[in-house]
Parts: sequence; structure tokens; C-alpha cells
Amino acid sequence: MDLSGIYPPIAIPFTQEEAIDFESLHFNLQRWLSEPIDGLVVPGSNSEAAYMSLEERLAVMRVCAQAARAAGKRLIAGTGMETTADTIRLTQAAAELGADAALLLPPYFYKPAMNRAVLTAHYRAVADASPIPLLVYNVPQFTGVAFDNPTLVELAQHEKIAGIKDSSSNIVQMASLKALCPSFQIFAGTGSALLPFLSIGGAGCIAALANFAAAALREVWQAYAAGRNAEAAALQVRLAQINAAVTSTYGVPGLKYAMQRCGYRGGWPRRPLLPLDASGQAAVDALLDALGLAAPNS
Amino acid sequence: MDLSGIYPPIAIPFTQEEAIDFESLHFNLQRWLSEPIDGLVVPGSNSEAAYMSLEERLAVMRVCAQAARAAGKRLIAGTGMETTADTIRLTQAAAELGADAALLLPPYFYKPAMNRAVLTAHYRAVADASPIPLLVYNVPQFTGVAFDNPTLVELAQHEKIAGIKDSSSNIVQMASLKALCPSFQIFAGTGSALLPFLSIGGAGCIAALANFAAAALREVWQAYAAGRNAEAAALQVRLAQINAAVTSTYGVPGLKYAMQRCGYRGGWPRRPLLPLDASGQAAVDALLDALGLAAPNS
Amino acid sequence: MDLSGIYPPIAIPFTQEEAIDFESLHFNLQRWLSEPIDGLVVPGSNSEAAYMSLEERLAVMRVCAQAARAAGKRLIAGTGMETTADTIRLTQAAAELGADAALLLPPYFYKPAMNRAVLTAHYRAVADASPIPLLVYNVPQFTGVAFDNPTLVELAQHEKIAGIKDSSSNIVQMASLKALCPSFQIFAGTGSALLPFLSIGGAGCIAALANFAAAALREVWQAYAAGRNAEAAALQVRLAQINAAVTSTYGVPGLKYAMQRCGYRGGWPRRPLLPLDASGQAAVDALLDALGLAAPNS
Amino acid sequence: MDLSGIYPPIAIPFTQEEAIDFESLHFNLQRWLSEPIDGLVVPGSNSEAAYMSLEERLAVMRVCAQAARAAGKRLIAGTGMETTADTIRLTQAAAELGADAALLLPPYFYKPAMNRAVLTAHYRAVADASPIPLLVYNVPQFTGVAFDNPTLVELAQHEKIAGIKDSSSNIVQMASLKALCPSFQIFAGTGSALLPFLSIGGAGCIAALANFAAAALREVWQAYAAGRNAEAAALQVRLAQINAAVTSTYGVPGLKYAMQRCGYRGGWPRRPLLPLDASGQAAVDALLDALGLAAPNS
Repeated sequence: MDLSGIYPPIAIPFTQEEAIDFESLHFNLQRWLSEPIDGLVVPGSNSEAAYMSLEERLAVMRVCAQAARAAGKRLIAGTGMETTADTIRLTQAAAELGADAALLLPPYFYKPAMNRAVLTAHYRAVADASPIPLLVYNVPQFTGVAFDNPTLVELAQHEKIAGIKDSSSNIVQMASLKALCPSFQIFAGTGSALLPFLSIGGAGCIAALANFAAAALREVWQAYAAGRNAEAAALQVRLAQINAAVTSTYGVPGLKYAMQRCGYRGGWPRRPLLPLDASGQAAVDALLDALGLAAPNS
Repeated sequence: MDLSGIYPPIAIPFTQEEAIDFESLHFNLQRWLSEPIDGLVVPGSNSEAAYMSLEERLAVMRVCAQAARAAGKRLIAGTGMETTADTIRLTQAAAELGADAALLLPPYFYKPAMNRAVLTAHYRAVADASPIPLLVYNVPQFTGVAFDNPTLVELAQHEKIAGIKDSSSNIVQMASLKALCPSFQIFAGTGSALLPFLSIGGAGCIAALANFAAAALREVWQAYAAGRNAEAAALQVRLAQINAAVTSTYGVPGLKYAMQRCGYRGGWPRRPLLPLDASGQAAVDALLDALGLAAPNS
Repeated sequence: MDLSGIYPPIAIPFTQEEAIDFESLHFNLQRWLSEPIDGLVVPGSNSEAAYMSLEERLAVMRVCAQAARAAGKRLIAGTGMETTADTIRLTQAAAELGADAALLLPPYFYKPAMNRAVLTAHYRAVADASPIPLLVYNVPQFTGVAFDNPTLVELAQHEKIAGIKDSSSNIVQMASLKALCPSFQIFAGTGSALLPFLSIGGAGCIAALANFAAAALREVWQAYAAGRNAEAAALQVRLAQINAAVTSTYGVPGLKYAMQRCGYRGGWPRRPLLPLDASGQAAVDALLDALGLAAPNS
Repeated sequence: MDLSGIYPPIAIPFTQEEAIDFESLHFNLQRWLSEPIDGLVVPGSNSEAAYMSLEERLAVMRVCAQAARAAGKRLIAGTGMETTADTIRLTQAAAELGADAALLLPPYFYKPAMNRAVLTAHYRAVADASPIPLLVYNVPQFTGVAFDNPTLVELAQHEKIAGIKDSSSNIVQMASLKALCPSFQIFAGTGSALLPFLSIGGAGCIAALANFAAAALREVWQAYAAGRNAEAAALQVRLAQINAAVTSTYGVPGLKYAMQRCGYRGGWPRRPLLPLDASGQAAVDALLDALGLAAPNS
């Protein structure tokens, strides 16, 4: 299955009392699904999946799967759990809810034990039991587990393991992986890496930035696809500061604030995450204004 | 509350089908509580807490709290969760079940966001709501979050935050912390660090090794307490290889195998963890035999 | 000064007795300077600069400057030393010998002390005293010092500091840097990153691979420049395995062996580096053969 | 040879023009050699060895060897260089100048290449050629190279390799090493680790703090040796803040300032290191005053 495209790993709005705000989620879904995206990823890192119960994850998947299907877009479900058994159950549940594919964090608590043998046994067991294709999610900044290429090459041999989201932006490793596994679908994990990943045969991006600037990412790709490389570079680079702000610099609280300013409903984060403070807000405001991304009356 | 002492962070036996084996747990509890320990820690890293549901954590706490109380020992409950709200709820539940104190991992998924402001707000919110004293659990090898001393000094000012388990064995940092917060109770997080931690005023250890070699750790402490320092050093150092085997080298599967060999019921780990392989078993056997720790007919 | 282009950071052949083999160096220079490169970088990491005396560094620079000038190519001299004073002296000497620019490692022994204030004071002092433009060399895998963007932006304000070689291949950071400092010249530090760096406005590469496969790198660039992006990606990716072999996998000994097989004179490394062992040789042979890079009778 | 004891790795005073200030060095030597130390280590990390030429290193060794011998103290020479050949030459020269032993940093530029085979070949070649015993210097915070125990056990089998200075303060690793190599002499690399290292059979310390507080370290040891363990702990812990200030917090500039305040001649550091700034001076002043370490009229 060709999954190539641009996907927002969607943020989930919470109320101040830390409950999921489904009304705001529906509001956001209407907007996202009218943007030039290929689908949604949920629940992922930007959805605060780590802060949701299993029931909440399923509830969110259900809502998003229905909305995505109605709009003719794909849904990629985040289903990685700490145990193999839980991961299998959640992946199967996601498939039943209509997910097109699943994106799987590795188990990561026992980092030193997550060697090649353990990781491949885990992913293969899930893939054997999964009705839908899987993407490996490499995000060592959150998991402390970095996939090396021998492990990925072994995983790629399973027919159900279709690709990777590489949030470490390790372009050199990904170039080698592409050489070793030409049909493996390699997604950038952050907006600033879209063009570099495309340049080595990447399949697109799953990027926080696509929560509120999908059209800008689409323009980067279109310029590149048309061979207008200087224009593509310029379009890519001008997104770099806001991309950093909603990822490495301010994280999910920064993303939620930027969404709010762009006409989405950002909502509150769950504690221990704290809402973006005033200086962070000013920085994000300035970046959005410079790009003309803020909504008129936000 | 003076919590000083030697504590096993107990391993939980699972059946081959990955269910909690409560019968084996009861068997083990009888043995542990007849050893020279001051209490139990559960569920902790060595309990595969990260691999248990909330209900399972509560069930295990309940069983252990009853057994500990009956034996006149303390129970320190592992109650750190990813969200502040869940951590408060689990800590309060542990207190109701009779836990004497709680040991709290920090939230750790969004590692880059776990700065001093976020961590102190989280721990203070939990401490404000907790009926029992708290210990901070510093285990960057699993969490990727390392507490610095300014953060710890700030936490130590809360009357409910009584100490730390430092599994990073950062003896230099702990010496500074002891100077800054003389009444803070500092526990070694691994058996090999017991004596070095005692040497700078530490309060004991919470160590995997105490699952099957508590008496040997007690001898180290007694020799030191009596000023027989050369003997203490010799007793401490001879435990170093087996301590490494059941922690950094082979992790929980190594610990479970060693327990089995020493007359406990180790049981299976949950996947993705795999049982100790044959070469690991041979290595652990040799170490246990050299120390005379293996049970006669194991 | 526009320094954009492809540069080999040349390897220096040593005799088995560990002396510089100037005859072989001359032989190699003839070949390099007939390749589609824009100049030479020497002495750099691949030259074993860290293993040369000051006198040797100057001798090598002199030979290479003369050869480069005769061929109408640029020479970029590696002049970073541990002290500010030594770095100034070596940079000035390089300029006198005819270097067009200098590439400067940061001081790196006292890693924790190499903060923004210390690094900017160091580089500015050198830039103030330098007759030629400077490139910052970011190679944390060797130095343990990683430049952040606030430091680089500050350095870029000096008229003599023209760009960076980023061997960390941090494409996301470089995209931000390009946005912040549009005229800063950003060079990939490894062959596999050439195209990704070009895609965000990079200036080329200074890459070990260019010691024996400059033409292949040139083809990547030409395809990209002509907007033949799929072809460029394919050409780039097929170089990934050999690029890894002569950098992260086998280092300088791997590079020297590959050069030897491609008709250059690789020579011996200096100890503690050891010549590539048999299994490494077989791996490099296979990669070179697959690409048709090996010389007929090598 | 039993090298156990307390050693300052001496700081070298430079003039404002960055020349070695031999007069001040002589002044300091008179004071050091009247303190309760067992010898001097020079040139080491605290001597800015990385910032000295080979000639300067030899000149400093010569002066210190003569002074140490006259006082009946040992001299341990820092002789680790990037190449094996240079390290052999400098170690032999140190022996000729009268050094009792040598302390050897590993080669560290090509960090990924410094595997067990390369490190053992290097150290063995030096040991084979050395007339004096060697100590391995493990200081990954500066070198980025961390020795593991299999490598150290292999090195310990050479009759000329007598021990290690472990500035990583990895007490757990050192406990294992002591078990594996009972006669290996293990030195703490920082003052705060003296007592923890002694508690597992360590041989003393080579610590920046001994440049101006050797008597306080000696008191720690004496209390421990007499079995007055609570007193030893208290004496050790009260040194923790000033120890951190002159090592991890402020580095060599902090050490030089503290020496100056304690009646030694600290002198200037070489650039890129900058003299301790005013806020750092105030912090060090407060710590020295609290301990009564500052000289009356400093």
C-alpha cells in the first residue's frame, strides 16, 4: 500500500479539567480534512498519546477514522504500547475501527534491553497479527531507543512492515536504508526534513507542522516535484523557525498555541505539560505573523 | 519518617501466558519477608510496572501491603505515572492500601520538556495530595530524565518529599545533595552502590540484588556500621559481578533467573522481554555458585 | 568569497614507519586535481591532522597549496588548534602559504567549558587576525562539542566567518541556520548528505568520499541542478553504503583502503589506528565492485 | 609499586601573555610539597596539558620532578598523546626525568575508532616500552572515550599497567573492576569521590581539590582508616560544593581562582579558557569562606 503523503499527527484538545474536548476535536477535524493532507495520524506523540488511557485512545481513533473515511483520507493509527500483547490488541482494534495503517513506537522503558533480537521479535509478532500495514516510529528523543539499519532491514523483510517515520532526521542513515530497502517508505518526522527526505526518495512527512501549515508543506513538495528546486528550498527554509517552535523548542504546548492562533482549537495540554508561557506565546506570534499564517481574528 | 534500610524492588512472576502468577508471588513474599530486609518496593522497574495495567498495579500492591504489614515490614509503592492526575490517584490509592511511602518515577515520555519548572510543579502537586511521604526515583537509564541538584533541592523543601533512589549511582552529585539537604534520605539504586552511598551518609539501598541476596547486603552494612571497613569493602566487592548480571547486563530476565536458582519463583517476563538465554543462564549459574547463593536443588 | 563546491578532505599516506610519504602524496595530488573537484581540504580529520606535528601540518599544506594553485583549484586549510594563540598562528601561516580559506575545529578538550561565550570569543579572535575567510567545523562525533544555532548566528555576523562544514548532518538545524543566515555557506560533511544539504540551499560538500569518488558526487549535483530529481536521488542513494564504509563504519583505515583499491596510494595510518582488517577489506571490495569504482588492476 | 595516596594534578600558572610563569610555579611547589600529599601529577587535565607544546610539557615535568624528589614525594607524569609513537616517546622522557609513574589519557580524537582492540594495542605498546608503571586515565567528560571493564581487565594483565584514575566516578563499574583485578590500584578522579572509592578498596585520589585542600582530604581518609565512619562522611560531604565549583561547574578557571584565594598563585588560564568571572568569583569566595579555607589576606 502506497502511504506516501503529508500527514498531521494531530493534537488533541483537552479542557482545562483535562478531559478530551470532543467538540473541539470535531471542529478541528473539519478544518484538517479540508486541507491538502493525505490523512491523519492519531494518537501520536503530538496527541499526548502517552497521557491517554487505552479507552481514550480507542475513542479518539473511532472519531477520527469516521471523519477521515467520510473525507476520503487515510487514517494511520498510533498503536505502539509497552508490551507486545497490548500492542497487538490495540493494532487489531485500530484495524477494526477502519485504520489504514498503524504507526508503532517501540517499547522503550527498558532501553538497554531493546536490542535487535527483542525489537525484531516484538515487531514481527505484531505484524503477524496485524490486518493492516505497519510503520516503525523512530523517535529516540522521546523513547531513548534508536533503530539501527540492520534491525530495520530485518523488519522490512516482513510484508506487513511498510516503512518508517524517522523523527531523528538521520538523513545519512535513511539514505543507506533506502539503498538497502528501495521499497521501504521513509517519512520525515518533522516539517523541516520534508525536502531533504524527498531528495533521497522519501515518501513524505508526518509532521506537527501539518497541524496548521499543511498547505505550506504541500507547496514545498509541489515545487520539488516540478523540478523548481531553488523555489522548493526557499519555501522549505522559511518554515524552519516555526517548525522548531512547535517541536523541539516548545513541544506540544507550542503546537497547541500555534493551532489556536491559526484558527484551530488548541485546548489545554494535560499536566505535567503546562500551557505555553507568555514569552513563548510572543515568539510564536512573531513567527506566525511573519509567515502570514495567523488567522485574522485570532 | 525514617525509611532507611534495605529493600528489594520485587520482581513479579508471570505465567507463560503472561498473567500475574499470584500463587508464586505469595510463595516469594513468604521468603522475602523472612529475610533481613526493611520492606518491599512494588511495583517498581524490576516488577515490570511499565508492563502492567493500573488494575494489576493495584492488585499487586494490595497483596504486598497485607503481607508486609503482617510481617512488620514497610511497603514503598511505585506510583509514578505519565500524568500528574494519574500519579495523584495512584499515590492516594497506595496510601489507602497501606503503603508507608511512595517511590515516584518522573513523567518521561516528553523528555526535552521535563525541565525544572515542569518537574517541580508535578512533584509538588503530587506531594500536596499525598498522605504518605514520597521518594524521587532517578533512573535516567530507563527514563532519559536526570534530576539535577537545583531541582532536587527545590523538591526537598516540600515536607512530604523525603528522599531519593538514585539508580544513576552518581556519587558525586549525591555527595553535593547530602551537603545541601542533610536530612534528605538517599538510597542507592543498585546493590554495588550500597557501601559507597553509606560512606557519604546514604540511607540504604533499593536494589534488584535484594530480591535474592538481602543477607549479603545486610552483612556489608553491618561490617561498615561496626567500623570493620576492610571487611565491608571485601563483602561489597564480591557481590559486584552478580549485581551487574541481574541489572545492567541481563536486566529483569537475568534477575528472574537468578531468583529461580536461589529458591524463589522467578516466572516468565512479559514480552517484549524474553527469558534469559542459555549463555546468560550459564553466566549467572557460575556467579551464583561462586558465591554459594544457589539453592541446593535448584 | 563563494566557496561552494565539492572538496575531498584528503587522506595523507604514511609509510609503514609512520612517516609522511610525500612521493605518494604527490602521486595522489595529480589524480585528485584531475577530478571534478573545486579544491582540497588539508589537513582535516581524514588527514589524521590530530596525529601530525605542527611542522608536518605546515609541510603538507605547502605541498598541497602549490599543487592546487597550479591546477586552478582552491585550498582550504585545516587550522583549528586547542589554543586560540596556536590557531591564530596556524591560520596566518596557512594564508601565507596560499590557502584560500581555513576550516576550524573548535577547541575540544575541555568540552563542558566550550560554551557560547568561550566559543565566540575564540572564533572572533581568530577571525580578527585572519587574512582569509573561515569555515566553522562542526563534528561532534570527534570533538564532543556541538555548535547550536545561537552560537552560529553570532559567529556568522563576523565578516570573515563564511560558513560551516556540518559533519553531524543535522539537517533540521541547518535548515534553521539557513533561514537565519541566508548567505552562510553550509557544507555537508559526508557524501551521503550532499543532496539533502543542497535541497535546503547548501553549498556543497567536504566529504571523505570525494577522495576517490568525486565524479559520482558531481553527477548527483548535476542531476539535481538540472531538475532531474529522481535521477539525483537514485545516484545519491547508491553511494550510501560505500560512504558509510569509509566514514562511520571503518573510518580513516577504511578510506585509505578504498583509495588504494581505486588507484590512489592509501598508505598506512598512524597508530593507534590500525590498517583495515581482512573482513573490512572484503566488505569494501564488494561495495567498490558493485559500483564499478575499483581500479582495473588494484 | 604501591602508588596509593592523595595527589594534586597541579594547575600551571600562566602570565597574562600566556607564557608559563615558572616563578609562580616554584612558589606553588614549595607550598604543595609541605602539604599532606603523596606526590604530584603533572601535566594533567588541570595543568592545561592539552594547551601546552611538547617542549613545555617536558620543561614542567623537569621542574616538578626535581622538586618532588627533593621533598621525598612521588611524581606521576601525564604522558598520553594522540599517537602511540608520541606517547611512547613522552613516557620514556618522563621516566628519564625521574617520574615514578605515568598517567595516560587514551587517544581520543577518533572516538568511534577507539574500540577495545585499538585501545589495548595502544596501551600495551606503550607499556612494553615504558620503564615505569602506568595508570590508565578514564575521563570521558573530556575525551569522549569510556573504558569498559573487559578492556581494563585485559590491560591490567600487563605487569606495567598498575591502575586507573577514574574521573567518571563510575563507582559501580569500579566495584566490578576491583572484584576482577584485586591488585589494580583505583584512584578517584575528583575529591568528592575519595571516600566512596576508599569504601570499595580504592587507592586514593588524584583530584583538583588537592591543589588547595589536601589537608581536608587527608582528614577524610584518616577518619575512615580509623573506623570513624560518621565523621568521615561528614568531612567528605562538607567538601562537596567547593569540589564541584573547581571541577564541573567552573573548571580550571575556577580552580585557579580558588588557589589564588588560598594563598597559591593561580595565574591566568590560556585562551580559549577565560578567567573566572565576577559571579563565579563570588560563589567560590562564599564556599571557601564557609570552610575557612581562604588565606587571611587573599
